[in-house]
Amino acid sequence: MASNTLGNFFTVTSFGESHGSHVGCVMDGVPSNIKINIAAIQTQVNRRKPNSNFATARLEDDVVEIISGLHNGKTTGAPICILIANKNIKSADYKNLQDAFRPNHADFTYAKKYINRDANGGGRSSIRITAPLVAAGNIALQIINSLYKNVQINAFVKAIGNAQILDVSKYFNMNAKKTDATNTRIPDKKIHEQALALINTCQQNGDTLGGQITCVINNLAIGIGEPIFEKLQANLAHAMLSINTVKGLEYGTGFASSTQTGSQHNDAFTVNNKKQITTTTNNSGGIQGGISNGMPIYFNVAFKPISSITKKQQTVNTKNNNITLSITGRHDVCAVPRAVPIVEAYTAITLLDLILKNKIYTQI
Amino acid sequence: MASNTLGNFFTVTSFGESHGSHVGCVMDGVPSNIKINIAAIQTQVNRRKPNSNFATARLEDDVVEIISGLHNGKTTGAPICILIANKNIKSADYKNLQDAFRPNHADFTYAKKYINRDANGGGRSSIRITAPLVAAGNIALQIINSLYKNVQINAFVKAIGNAQILDVSKYFNMNAKKTDATNTRIPDKKIHEQALALINTCQQNGDTLGGQITCVINNLAIGIGEPIFEKLQANLAHAMLSINTVKGLEYGTGFASSTQTGSQHNDAFTVNNKKQITTTTNNSGGIQGGISNGMPIYFNVAFKPISSITKKQQTVNTKNNNITLSITGRHDVCAVPRAVPIVEAYTAITLLDLILKNKIYTQI
Amino acid sequence: MASNTLGNFFTVTSFGESHGSHVGCVMDGVPSNIKINIAAIQTQVNRRKPNSNFATARLEDDVVEIISGLHNGKTTGAPICILIANKNIKSADYKNLQDAFRPNHADFTYAKKYINRDANGGGRSSIRITAPLVAAGNIALQIINSLYKNVQINAFVKAIGNAQILDVSKYFNMNAKKTDATNTRIPDKKIHEQALALINTCQQNGDTLGGQITCVINNLAIGIGEPIFEKLQANLAHAMLSINTVKGLEYGTGFASSTQTGSQHNDAFTVNNKKQITTTTNNSGGIQGGISNGMPIYFNVAFKPISSITKKQQTVNTKNNNITLSITGRHDVCAVPRAVPIVEAYTAITLLDLILKNKIYTQI
Amino acid sequence: MASNTLGNFFTVTSFGESHGSHVGCVMDGVPSNIKINIAAIQTQVNRRKPNSNFATARLEDDVVEIISGLHNGKTTGAPICILIANKNIKSADYKNLQDAFRPNHADFTYAKKYINRDANGGGRSSIRITAPLVAAGNIALQIINSLYKNVQINAFVKAIGNAQILDVSKYFNMNAKKTDATNTRIPDKKIHEQALALINTCQQNGDTLGGQITCVINNLAIGIGEPIFEKLQANLAHAMLSINTVKGLEYGTGFASSTQTGSQHNDAFTVNNKKQITTTTNNSGGIQGGISNGMPIYFNVAFKPISSITKKQQTVNTKNNNITLSITGRHDVCAVPRAVPIVEAYTAITLLDLILKNKIYTQI
Repeated sequence: MASNTLGNFFTVTSFGESHGSHVGCVMDGVPSNIKINIAAIQTQVNRRKPNSNFATARLEDDVVEIISGLHNGKTTGAPICILIANKNIKSADYKNLQDAFRPNHADFTYAKKYINRDANGGGRSSIRITAPLVAAGNIALQIINSLYKNVQINAFVKAIGNAQILDVSKYFNMNAKKTDATNTRIPDKKIHEQALALINTCQQNGDTLGGQITCVINNLAIGIGEPIFEKLQANLAHAMLSINTVKGLEYGTGFASSTQTGSQHNDAFTVNNKKQITTTTNNSGGIQGGISNGMPIYFNVAFKPISSITKKQQTVNTKNNNITLSITGRHDVCAVPRAVPIVEAYTAITLLDLILKNKIYTQI
Repeated sequence: MASNTLGNFFTVTSFGESHGSHVGCVMDGVPSNIKINIAAIQTQVNRRKPNSNFATARLEDDVVEIISGLHNGKTTGAPICILIANKNIKSADYKNLQDAFRPNHADFTYAKKYINRDANGGGRSSIRITAPLVAAGNIALQIINSLYKNVQINAFVKAIGNAQILDVSKYFNMNAKKTDATNTRIPDKKIHEQALALINTCQQNGDTLGGQITCVINNLAIGIGEPIFEKLQANLAHAMLSINTVKGLEYGTGFASSTQTGSQHNDAFTVNNKKQITTTTNNSGGIQGGISNGMPIYFNVAFKPISSITKKQQTVNTKNNNITLSITGRHDVCAVPRAVPIVEAYTAITLLDLILKNKIYTQI
Repeated sequence: MASNTLGNFFTVTSFGESHGSHVGCVMDGVPSNIKINIAAIQTQVNRRKPNSNFATARLEDDVVEIISGLHNGKTTGAPICILIANKNIKSADYKNLQDAFRPNHADFTYAKKYINRDANGGGRSSIRITAPLVAAGNIALQIINSLYKNVQINAFVKAIGNAQILDVSKYFNMNAKKTDATNTRIPDKKIHEQALALINTCQQNGDTLGGQITCVINNLAIGIGEPIFEKLQANLAHAMLSINTVKGLEYGTGFASSTQTGSQHNDAFTVNNKKQITTTTNNSGGIQGGISNGMPIYFNVAFKPISSITKKQQTVNTKNNNITLSITGRHDVCAVPRAVPIVEAYTAITLLDLILKNKIYTQI
Repeated sequence: MASNTLGNFFTVTSFGESHGSHVGCVMDGVPSNIKINIAAIQTQVNRRKPNSNFATARLEDDVVEIISGLHNGKTTGAPICILIANKNIKSADYKNLQDAFRPNHADFTYAKKYINRDANGGGRSSIRITAPLVAAGNIALQIINSLYKNVQINAFVKAIGNAQILDVSKYFNMNAKKTDATNTRIPDKKIHEQALALINTCQQNGDTLGGQITCVINNLAIGIGEPIFEKLQANLAHAMLSINTVKGLEYGTGFASSTQTGSQHNDAFTVNNKKQITTTTNNSGGIQGGISNGMPIYFNVAFKPISSITKKQQTVNTKNNNITLSITGRHDVCAVPRAVPIVEAYTAITLLDLILKNKIYTQI
């Protein structure tokens, strides 16, 4: 399998560049005869757009076109191709940057690896290519919910810079509406205010910020995840680390687990009054042995700050000269809030792939 | 592709259970006519064995047998099958555990998912299945070094419990000999001593510990990693999160990146006196845009404490009754030191897969 | 991998339906920095269009749009998405057929398998979906020829109905111009005339014809093909049997080999005056042990007659009633000539995939 | 995916060489909790062994060892590794052949492609590697029959040399016992006698024979096969053309279809008295649009004569000299009868892979 496909039974193959005519993707391995709510897809894609003064001023009017694979509003089992036209492309904004290797961007490595690099707007390495993937993720979620009841995937911003929610467990029942109540997508009012202040300062300094996103999967059946190399957490990690600015992933108690003892960390099993087996704590993050155990699944994803800063930086140009660079134009101060639907989409795609696998191997 | 294979151009397919006759794996996509040092493989596999009083007392005499794919000491391009016999199997040790769902083990999820579960010694979910994978990883490393010069993959223990090296950057030039100088595999003498003390206490309490491992790849060429879904960090994350007790991965400055500003985080490019482009700092961890940039690659992996504790725990048995459990027998207090060669192996397998991909797509 | 992708290192993923807005495909695993002749692609796609009175009257104005993966006329290593708009869609032509299971079409099996079936113009099962694949095949051929010199893939019609060339070996140096000299694409003048007469008769009878295509690959290097499950002939067979109306494939002396003795069939090796090893005969069809041996590769593909006939047929409708059916409208009498560029395209895609694999495993 | 794996959801990965310690394979994607009859596996493997005076004198005592993936006689969902020890290895037999490129063998292409070639007994290119695959095929068949009722896969010899059954349709209800009633595995007594006479003559001449095998799948459900690139006939063709000496495959009326008109070839649908839709003829060979239609599936496979002949042949040695060669030792005159269980095995593996795929995409 080549490198632009996520999943292997249910697959999403990405194509397109920032300043080409379209960005898009093809979904394959789509179960047939499932009703798809088209409006819901567009709504989710809209959540990826800039929604505030600290995000990019570029107007992205992302109209989702589905050009195959649906008939009478339902899947046919054929591949679903999604296109989103690129509008409002001002290559001029980037022209002065084409000769520079912008620090922490993909410019340098793409130039060395591929030689023939489309530098316009970041070309293939632009986060813009995630727009159709968000659409695909929403379709995946709809398919999941036609197979299982009420599976919910909700991400929210845990931290922007140092403004961080310490105990995320009280936000394990979020939904898009609640998450979008603040433009930072931080559900804690106080942390939200701190984050806004940080953003404000950074904007004045020509600087940028990163943060963290927590994603929670509720109501997932027991049994999802395929040891030993398609474990639920491994596939989620693969998906998350595929997002441009992600620097790490932890699930359950994550890195903090490494400082716990076994007796602190272990989740005791117990039989509840419905005769179901659950755990009394959830340090496992809903996954044991690589397989969902019926408890909420949660994981945190770390995002580095946006690489395009207005502040002057030292760097090198394509002619191998040291230069000084200031990146102007429309750029976000903090992209973490906009990454929420991306995290949700990649989670849904990963999950549907594993749900279909589980369907094969274990539900005879 | 089914679920027991790591990689997709160069693949390693795992098979075997803890108490079956053998554990093993098959390597496919092996370049032909490469000399393999057999002794080096065995040496690396031996590093996975228990080496101290805080690790399992089970004597694992892991003799590597290579039954195909080599001819006159060189690869033939055919699949390499590795077998390691399971000796010294005392199923009796586990008999009393077969009816219990041990907390944080895979018992419960395997039983629910697969129904017919081989519980002996953890069966398929035992860490024992990594023994032949360590052998495969060493072969992968040898192949890498027949393609490129002097690529080094070295992991060491960064932390056991709270005993943690804060600045790992001074240990970016480790090797197996230096790492194995202490039985904790912590290169910092003082932290090593702290760790030993923690282990000692835990052992007395019938409790266990986790920790962290740092892995460093040196001398890797520019260009390794295949956007957008086979990025170097994504594939490494996939591999690492496939290890039984791993709870998280971060690369470069990782989670700490989320609290930096762009101007703090960005690595300035500069032209050195050999006219090569390097970065003045390495917060990127040697990866930009999913592709190696020629700087050292480093990442941290978090391990939860071992799940098998002697301390009494509440749990449930296979008949749905609440029970109290004390896990006795031969079990490690801390498995992190033994995971060092596993981390190295999975890294080498992941890297060779991406190196072969890069060979296809970009070196024409 | 899901089911709409051909190849696995170099992949082409098909999408689209006959009467949707577009048919298209995504090529991935594309080596970077290779110059692509766009005009040549369109020229090849035009060869798939109806070119005579015995082929469909539907005007297919197949304009190839490449919306990603190229920059300054060269590949970038990113996926190449090809779109071809569906114009001149008269669903009315098919409306009366939607309730019938047309004999030997995919109507019945699609309806049972997928339940929600797009019947317009055959929907997903229409041969129309091969239009963008012909474009992809031409790109594949161009890439092959940037890696190797002068690899030629030429197919021609060996037979239409009983009008059959018995000794194809004299046509092992065809090219598109020579093949297209007759509208049957049969290079033998006399057989061509016989075929025209058969077509004429069939058209009058409201009946249809099948035939055979021979495809020859010249100048391929030794070593292409990956035993034991990606042998050159196995992958070619997979590709050819993926074409809608293909009923069989044979390579080299094919089915006739089964009546030869070993001494008749074996190709003697000999050292030629350039000190190269060749064979004195080529019953092997250029492939031994699944790997190209440097001799011309040739294979025959059998096509059944077109299923849509004007003659009355008995069949069943979607309400489970026996009915009588006469399929009117624009339909070919014989589609075999139009299949020539499809055979060439699938061959090129298959070959590039194996060429890239060989690049990995054996050219160190 | 590398090249030694057949299937992609259900996979069988082959390893081993003719004169290594073992040949074997790993099955992955195995549904769990399915009872396996071990004796039936061995019985089927025994059918691959030489059974008469016209087959190899090498005593192959192929004892199947299953070293993983079963527990209490049932699958666990873990990979199943099958080993068969190579006994009675007389490398001496082959020693004088190691320097020669035997005509129509894989010697020349392997030597050029892989450089480091294991020539002992044909090494990796030996048909011996199919022994464990026959075991895997039988397990696949057992799994199929735990999912569906009474699916039968039966192959028999249609032809040896010119001794050929013309109408195979009367042998569409064979079973192993009936097939094995003659040592040619030709079910027609008269043709069997003709074949024996041909074999006898060839043996005296130091020559060899090929032939054809017909394989029939009965009682397969409607819906198996995944357009557009995993069509049932495409995957079967891929599998069959992976068998060493196979030169072609045709399904249904196959190559003869190319001389039929549409009205002759089309299979009329009809509603039978059980209100089921069937076809009145079966030229389609049970497959339409790449998907099973509920009718018997049948296909023919052509085998070239065995390449190792005692008769003197011209060839070239590894030092690039023209030489004369006579291959002595234990070799079959005709391997086609022994290929019957191989054809059945590859069919079962292919079928189970597609059955599992169908389970995902269409049975919600």
